[in-house]
Amino acid sequence: MTLKAIGIVRNEIKQPARRDWGETVSEIVIDPGLTEALDGLEDFSHIIVLYWMHQVISREVPLKIHPMGRQELPLVGLFAARTPNRPNRIGKATVRLLQRQGNILMVRGLDALDGSPVIDIKPYLPGYDSATDATVPQWITNQ
Amino acid sequence: MTLKAIGIVRNEIKQPARRDWGETVSEIVIDPGLTEALDGLEDFSHIIVLYWMHQVISREVPLKIHPMGRQELPLVGLFAARTPNRPNRIGKATVRLLQRQGNILMVRGLDALDGSPVIDIKPYLPGYDSATDATVPQWITNQ
Repeated sequence: MTLKAIGIVRNEIKQPARRDWGETVSEIVIDPGLTEALDGLEDFSHIIVLYWMHQVISREVPLKIHPMGRQELPLVGLFAARTPNRPNRIGKATVRLLQRQGNILMVRGLDALDGSPVIDIKPYLPGYDSATDATVPQWITNQ
Repeated sequence: MTLKAIGIVRNEIKQPARRDWGETVSEIVIDPGLTEALDGLEDFSHIIVLYWMHQVISREVPLKIHPMGRQELPLVGLFAARTPNRPNRIGKATVRLLQRQGNILMVRGLDALDGSPVIDIKPYLPGYDSATDATVPQWITNQ
């Protein structure tokens, strides 16, 4: 299973850092040969972006971690957290699509660093992609 | 960018078909060497599953399609639809986690065929993964 980049993230965030990504505006520059494949995406308010977390340089993938490196949070399995250091370093973000111009998507809330390869873009479908009755453990709600 | 399977989907669905996947129960059998990495996942009601749509055999990836092959739906770019025939054939599903037993996750609503390689498991985080004010084009709501 080999991935090819379909585009790249462009924003001001050059280095990994804990930050509030909610207001970060990014451009997703899609391969011009795929421009037509974006047609109709502008009719959705939100999109799902799959991207490659290329700046994770650790070779080791610890099976259990303290989320966000915070020792006061419980030691949980990596699949119970959103740590970027995973067996397959794919990030998944639901973001607002501000604008599409040709092969360029302007989005808000994408927590990807500048230069991240983009792997897939999907339209966000309420109901299918959301779970209204979802519950999470206390360490998430107490954060 | 090369992916390794972290597990495999097991269910009764052997062939691609248009169906209502909402009630389909599947087992996700994770590599036993990664069992510990699932610890704490059982405290979430829903999880996000990334999987490889291995039964897409077409070599050609049309840039524009009628969603679900339905000619009455508008011709849209592949990135404006959830068609499995994409540059990178990764499926993304939000599913209910019914049970975790060791390295086996029992889930409801996973729209993956039996034998699909699993690439990643992430906890579903309401707010981060959902968008309460999302809007979609009319061809989606009219379906």
